Amino acid sequence: MRTIHVIGIGAGDPDQLTLQAVKALRGTDVFFVLDKGEVKSDLTRLRRDMLETHIPEGGYRVVEARDPERDRRAGGAAYSPAVGDWRSARADIYARLIEEELGEDETGAFLVWGDPALYDSTIAILEEVLERGRVDFTYDVVPGISSVSALVGRHRTGLNRVARPVQITTGRRLAEGFPEGVDDVVVMLDAHQAFRQYTDEDLHIYWGAYIGTPDEILVSGPIAEAAPRIERLRAEARERKGWIMDTYLLRRHPKKA
Amino acid sequence: MRTIHVIGIGAGDPDQLTLQAVKALRGTDVFFVLDKGEVKSDLTRLRRDMLETHIPEGGYRVVEARDPERDRRAGGAAYSPAVGDWRSARADIYARLIEEELGEDETGAFLVWGDPALYDSTIAILEEVLERGRVDFTYDVVPGISSVSALVGRHRTGLNRVARPVQITTGRRLAEGFPEGVDDVVVMLDAHQAFRQYTDEDLHIYWGAYIGTPDEILVSGPIAEAAPRIERLRAEARERKGWIMDTYLLRRHPKKA
Repeated sequence: MRTIHVIGIGAGDPDQLTLQAVKALRGTDVFFVLDKGEVKSDLTRLRRDMLETHIPEGGYRVVEARDPERDRRAGGAAYSPAVGDWRSARADIYARLIEEELGEDETGAFLVWGDPALYDSTIAILEEVLERGRVDFTYDVVPGISSVSALVGRHRTGLNRVARPVQITTGRRLAEGFPEGVDDVVVMLDAHQAFRQYTDEDLHIYWGAYIGTPDEILVSGPIAEAAPRIERLRAEARERKGWIMDTYLLRRHPKKA
Repeated sequence: MRTIHVIGIGAGDPDQLTLQAVKALRGTDVFFVLDKGEVKSDLTRLRRDMLETHIPEGGYRVVEARDPERDRRAGGAAYSPAVGDWRSARADIYARLIEEELGEDETGAFLVWGDPALYDSTIAILEEVLERGRVDFTYDVVPGISSVSALVGRHRTGLNRVARPVQITTGRRLAEGFPEGVDDVVVMLDAHQAFRQYTDEDLHIYWGAYIGTPDEILVSGPIAEAAPRIERLRAEARERKGWIMDTYLLRRHPKKA
């Protein structure tokens, strides 16, 4: 039976790999790498370095494929269907990779930045491949340190306050309004800096980009003061590197914690 | 200057330690262990095994102290103040430990199950100790795999669905009502199995206890079917082991994902 590991490899710091992830890497015959055709060569290099560090003897294969284009123009209500089509196209590719590139008794792996549990589609795509029934395999998930966890760790704060909830959401949703019933909100996938519409509120922001890497940038403070600084640093970094990955925590009424 | 690591050591599987955590363990002179006077000897043993595995040469000290009693009878609105008193009492102990047991140029560590960012008070207590100004030190946080991440990894599902939010909350809060604006809710610290009041709803539950350990129990399914089973398994396990640590994800309308 074919086996597949979905391995969380942490948010960017290679030391955030778990021992379980290292064992899974070392037990893998074929690594599947889906290339988005983007310029995130730093990430590609980081991933390659991890393999070379933890499997110095080699002996594994790396199979690269091109990720299907995702229709990012589809906004608002159209978002989910567009994601659905994209996921289905991706399932076609995954099914083919597993069937053609992985031997019957071999182990394959997909490496996922952060934690496969947060805003990553690998698990859902593998489930779709299994449902189609064209190729059979077992798989497991190796949890990783998420960018959320890495962010607050670097800021030396918690995700929630005592006995209080925390919500993890997207920039798109934050743009529609501050979530109800929570005072601590983590925002991911925010290409449009939705935090800017809350600069009049009594919020503290803990922001980070490229967390755990040599390019890491951290900013925290009352949102009115911090937002312009984040905007400037974010634009500069994006210009310099060609891409950015950032995350932030918004905390309401920080003094009343 | 004294240095302190707050080290997330994962949810129970010793392989869920990160390489960063192992390095921090190995760079520590003094481990502070706060004993709750409870019967969780499995956890004490697990922690000791981690130290013996990763620092086989020894050379470190372990300083144990008794955790202050927390008034768990205080319910409802009284919860936070009781926690406040307890945190303050704990800060007294931490200050004394750091001042008396850690040399000026030494490194100490607090080991935290899961991730120090989620429902753990170590960071807040250290901040309180620093604010009081009696003893000075620097500290950092080493993120760990949380029980939340371990739970969904073992169930091979994500925390959120595509472009949707997820809320992490407590059993006490869930008992007050299902959180607004979210369909995916992770519940921690639920001694009273608040999920039982939602068995009439269209919810899927992913539950786990002692996750990542040899005693691990996992149950998932529609809540009406799964709840009685969880209740029975939970009571049996608690009786057998004398303690239980469990977490669950509630997912609304699972078919419409």
